[in-house]
Amino acid sequence: MHRIYFDNAATTALAPEVLEAMMPFLTEKFGNPSSIYSYGRESKMAIEAARKTVARILNCNPGEIFFTSGGTESSNTAINASVNDLGCKHIITSPIEHHATLHTVENLEKKGIVRLSIVKLTDKGHIDMADLESLLANSPEKTLVTLMHANNEVGNILDIQAVGELCKKYDAIFHSDTVQTVGHYPFDLKNTYVHFINGAGHKFHGPKGVGILYVNENIQIKPLINGGSQERNMRAGTENLYGIVGFAKALEMATEHYNNDSEYIRGLKSYMAEQLTHTFAGVSCNGDTNGRSLYTVLNVSFPKTDKTDMLLFNLDMAGICVSGGSACSSGASSVSHVIKALYNGKSETMVPIRFSFSKQNTKEEVDAVIEKLKDLI
Amino acid sequence: MHRIYFDNAATTALAPEVLEAMMPFLTEKFGNPSSIYSYGRESKMAIEAARKTVARILNCNPGEIFFTSGGTESSNTAINASVNDLGCKHIITSPIEHHATLHTVENLEKKGIVRLSIVKLTDKGHIDMADLESLLANSPEKTLVTLMHANNEVGNILDIQAVGELCKKYDAIFHSDTVQTVGHYPFDLKNTYVHFINGAGHKFHGPKGVGILYVNENIQIKPLINGGSQERNMRAGTENLYGIVGFAKALEMATEHYNNDSEYIRGLKSYMAEQLTHTFAGVSCNGDTNGRSLYTVLNVSFPKTDKTDMLLFNLDMAGICVSGGSACSSGASSVSHVIKALYNGKSETMVPIRFSFSKQNTKEEVDAVIEKLKDLI
Ligand SMILES: Cc1ncc(COP(=O)(O)O)c(C=O)c1O
Ligand SMILES: Cc1ncc(COP(=O)(O)O)c(C=O)c1O
Repeated sequence: MHRIYFDNAATTALAPEVLEAMMPFLTEKFGNPSSIYSYGRESKMAIEAARKTVARILNCNPGEIFFTSGGTESSNTAINASVNDLGCKHIITSPIEHHATLHTVENLEKKGIVRLSIVKLTDKGHIDMADLESLLANSPEKTLVTLMHANNEVGNILDIQAVGELCKKYDAIFHSDTVQTVGHYPFDLKNTYVHFINGAGHKFHGPKGVGILYVNENIQIKPLINGGSQERNMRAGTENLYGIVGFAKALEMATEHYNNDSEYIRGLKSYMAEQLTHTFAGVSCNGDTNGRSLYTVLNVSFPKTDKTDMLLFNLDMAGICVSGGSACSSGASSVSHVIKALYNGKSETMVPIRFSFSKQNTKEEVDAVIEKLKDLI
Repeated sequence: MHRIYFDNAATTALAPEVLEAMMPFLTEKFGNPSSIYSYGRESKMAIEAARKTVARILNCNPGEIFFTSGGTESSNTAINASVNDLGCKHIITSPIEHHATLHTVENLEKKGIVRLSIVKLTDKGHIDMADLESLLANSPEKTLVTLMHANNEVGNILDIQAVGELCKKYDAIFHSDTVQTVGHYPFDLKNTYVHFINGAGHKFHGPKGVGILYVNENIQIKPLINGGSQERNMRAGTENLYGIVGFAKALEMATEHYNNDSEYIRGLKSYMAEQLTHTFAGVSCNGDTNGRSLYTVLNVSFPKTDKTDMLLFNLDMAGICVSGGSACSSGASSVSHVIKALYNGKSETMVPIRFSFSKQNTKEEVDAVIEKLKDLI
């Protein structure tokens, strides 16, 4: 059975060129980057070259980029450091953040270490900027604002510049979870007021098990993971050498072909949105699909019926990989915290499905999925 | 120039068979293990198979094995959880632990969260068991004992069973940093009183960027890294799928050939020790070389002279990779905390060099290194 993979927001295929760049380090070049002999220094140089590549693409200093094990570790580091090292006693976040953020801030609140404020959302699921400003204006404590750049389930994009300006005005620390945008959008960190952003290689055809944390040079934090002096004492542990090399290569490739790839993928998304809404009665788009939204993510709701209830299962049987945008543990699907926050009250009558695209997908695959959905509904 | 790699305690070459086992997951099998469609479940099954392999080899339950990003993260998790979740207010450790342990416990002490006791060492650099018992007997607080199974610099091996018995007697939590022994020695965790052990793939011809944490089923801890529900809510973040598969494969290979490999490597170590002490005046072995010591590690001291001072540098020039057993940052070598703790006062007159072996090394390489050393000294 030919598989159609429309779940690129969950993870992506490793690009063959990225694997090729990693291969020398998976074979003969295995020296420990912390070793002082030349064979170890070669590994170190590969890491520093990767750091420079990443910094050049994000327009920041290499000294502001730290390699980690992934997007989740990076978010945990940023949030904990804001509290432990930067004196934040109040955290403002949104109800639609990734669990890497939500569970971390909730833990800090439960332990009584911080006060937690949840910013309101607009009808389309964007951050209510007036509410954000009022929360900041009424915060006597040093505050951390942690708001994701793009939502992984519905695709809504934050106006990161505008939020940065507000944080600047109120002297707040700003962390933006950019896991869905690093490798998909251009960044200009020198001209963005933000203290922390993060990225995960596997979201843009890079390797799993590696991520980055950007730490603005104007702040000083301590590591989450202590030990050796790797990553200039900011992240201990023998480096994931091939992962780091692969991360930089994947980011480089994503950037080189950004204009073509993003236009192509955006085309797939709008074509699919059109086909879905024209073909199926009652289908609606979740989030700000045609507005400030990821070109990679399309989240739609089917009205709940006996047939749509089995949709994910039946699509899987047909070799079509899509996500319910839902957190599933036991195989029993339940509507996610994001959909609940956006469609409070209505969410139980919806069957949300997330289609997320990459450059490896085609219009023919969209057609095939539409045909299959016709069969199933 | 032919390179001679005698720094296998720092990191090892990835075995070709391990890379082969990883390759399907670096190419076509990239599905996210948390996705509910069958393509994701295949990845999940690969992880669970890896967990079962590891558990079988260490003789514990699969539910006691958690995959992490490496040995350092695992030690950090165990130590922080002992304090945050298991109520430990007193930590007993040794002066020769890895920095992943030492820096973590020192941070906890500095913050006033725990009391810290440093156990005495015997002449040969082993834990003074009488001192350990007296520290435990005089600890009114719940106590964490964190002592490494084998020292990475001098190779000394702890009597883990005996320490476990003491911890049991005094109801202490016991973490043993087993990064130098997992993949090199047999384990029987069901019959060992220990709450946490850890391992790092790259120390036994497995991949970098992946490790394990064993958590005894009788204790309940919370994650260090929060977010998604990966690793049964114990370690959030999209899994390093190929790393995990590679870890299990490397451990399997290490176990299959344990008898032959360990005997062969032990032979290299004793041959080199003999050659060194017979050929060079004033060379002495550090640690308990001929007693309870890793068969992989040989640490010797040359008397400090103008010539031996440049030894590491000159060996590097000759393509020989060895370690000073020292923490180097700026290229200027300084004697490590381990050597200082063991040879207090004398350490400034010593030039310690660690030779560490793997099954890929040969007697001919030992001979070549001895010849080179004759040239240099
Ligand atoms: C004894 C010991 N503990 C912990 C570590 C840390 O392991 P890693 O660097 O893979 O995180 C090492 C190796 O560096 C080690 O030798
Ligand atoms: C928005 C967002 N943040 C954080 C993460 C966590 O990244 P990772 O699972 O690679 O640690 C993800 C992906 O899972 C994500 O989509």
